[in-house]
Amino acid sequence: MIERIRRGAAQPGAAVIRGIGDDCAVVRPPRGHELLVTTDFSLEGIHFRREWHGPQAVGHRCLTRGLSDIAAMGGKPLAAFLSLALPADVPQRWVDDFLRGFLRLARRFQTPLAGGDTAQSPGSILADIVVLGSAPRGKAILRSGAKAGDDIYVTGSLGAGLAILRQLQAGAGRFSRGGGPWQPRTPAERKHFYPVPRLEVGRWLRERQLASAMIDISDGLSTELRHICQESKVGAWIAEAAVPVTAGAHLEEALHGGDEYELLFTAKPARHERIPERIAGVPIHWIGVITRDPGVWLVAPDMKSRQELRPRGWEHFRA
Amino acid sequence: MIERIRRGAAQPGAAVIRGIGDDCAVVRPPRGHELLVTTDFSLEGIHFRREWHGPQAVGHRCLTRGLSDIAAMGGKPLAAFLSLALPADVPQRWVDDFLRGFLRLARRFQTPLAGGDTAQSPGSILADIVVLGSAPRGKAILRSGAKAGDDIYVTGSLGAGLAILRQLQAGAGRFSRGGGPWQPRTPAERKHFYPVPRLEVGRWLRERQLASAMIDISDGLSTELRHICQESKVGAWIAEAAVPVTAGAHLEEALHGGDEYELLFTAKPARHERIPERIAGVPIHWIGVITRDPGVWLVAPDMKSRQELRPRGWEHFRA
Repeated sequence: MIERIRRGAAQPGAAVIRGIGDDCAVVRPPRGHELLVTTDFSLEGIHFRREWHGPQAVGHRCLTRGLSDIAAMGGKPLAAFLSLALPADVPQRWVDDFLRGFLRLARRFQTPLAGGDTAQSPGSILADIVVLGSAPRGKAILRSGAKAGDDIYVTGSLGAGLAILRQLQAGAGRFSRGGGPWQPRTPAERKHFYPVPRLEVGRWLRERQLASAMIDISDGLSTELRHICQESKVGAWIAEAAVPVTAGAHLEEALHGGDEYELLFTAKPARHERIPERIAGVPIHWIGVITRDPGVWLVAPDMKSRQELRPRGWEHFRA
Repeated sequence: MIERIRRGAAQPGAAVIRGIGDDCAVVRPPRGHELLVTTDFSLEGIHFRREWHGPQAVGHRCLTRGLSDIAAMGGKPLAAFLSLALPADVPQRWVDDFLRGFLRLARRFQTPLAGGDTAQSPGSILADIVVLGSAPRGKAILRSGAKAGDDIYVTGSLGAGLAILRQLQAGAGRFSRGGGPWQPRTPAERKHFYPVPRLEVGRWLRERQLASAMIDISDGLSTELRHICQESKVGAWIAEAAVPVTAGAHLEEALHGGDEYELLFTAKPARHERIPERIAGVPIHWIGVITRDPGVWLVAPDMKSRQELRPRGWEHFRA
């Protein structure tokens, strides 16, 4: 299997001096840059289900989880490392299609697959993705930089992760059809099965030093906003009417659903006019403000009442 | 759990600018150095068994797998990243002891735990370790540098990994005793349960540019020697009588047993006098020579007959 992966993997990029085939990969980050490192599990039964998610979508989503963390720091990906453990019953075809989905996304974002590990799995399919990225020294956008008075923005739209999960759980027939790779049709389906990491947006903001804090929304808006507030020691008000909801999803799914790869960021109010309506084609929405008081509140559309926005975490793909 | 790990993890080291608590860790490799990256699974039922291996030993062995790959490049570890998925039935005590074993080894080799991922496991305990290391630009010791005529050396002694595994499989009573952490008594037991990565040896060889190729023996001498020969496009003769066998193990276990963390390296014959009997207290044994012909042979103690040394891979901890 390692030989198949080695043949399929992209050639070493500028940063990858030595890829698959030694005890370690050798990577040379750009001069004057710091290294960004992120690791994310993709476990069958937890992050995906084989009867719901085709192998190409599983491979795509696996890499998106890592790339999205690089995007959230404003970084550029340098290389990916894939640890993959397979039970004996997985057909070679599944593995080939998984790698196809993985490597297509890797090529799109110029991220060579430079190493990893393989093993027999004692149970279900297990993947762990590591992505290395870089940012100029001291310029990575952290979660801890939000200040009272900063505006809060989100990219794209939210809710597809949980909305489609609920359709899958309800047994929506056409997802589980057998045969060839299933093609998503609606915007929500595309976002669930083939989410795009917002690398260009993150980098655009970092290059212009416009964002004071940033995070990706993999565990849901309410949870990730809480992370920014905790690390920055601030609170937030979110305007319910301003939260962008993906067509086909509900507000509650947009507020609390995880498995999203949009970016949540803050910026000084003086920067508001420099934040465009779209960055690299992705809509940018103002959704609220950072406050000195530590609470996180959702303000009703009439702008008169408010309720606490509690972090609700992420629903796993359990049966 | 993340908060417990965050509290237990060492403070950021010189290279770790930002550890646990953001989308990515931020790492600053030493100036003029390249980055080394390795990932290794430690899966229950494949790489360890809960009834055989205490949690401290599992944590120790998990990190050793990564550190040993850094050692095999002659590198210095900079930071570790741990992805850990646990089924619901694992007691908190097990996790605490796992982290204790992991972090004790991390402190010994000044390797801060700088990030990772946590998840619920759909089945057994799953760990994936990533270690980042560094070596001066262009100086990492690869598998591909062996030349015909080079001498072949191995550190320490071999065979404990498989010898103890066989005792465990045979139901040796005192390994599976319940209660407090089980203390290994013999050299073979210590090597199996608490293997020490040969970081000082690897670095010593790299600093003096004495080794032409190097690898660690995690998958067994016969398999790893084949890797060096394939990557270097050479063959090898191994002198059976020269292979160092750990007390309590057999020659066949030393030749083919995996789960070892000794180093296998090659050096030009002119360097032979500069390779001492011990490096950093670890015995160094000459075991054979690299040849132009691609075969790998085991030469009998009478030095007259030889047989092909086939790679036999590694026996997993399956029931």
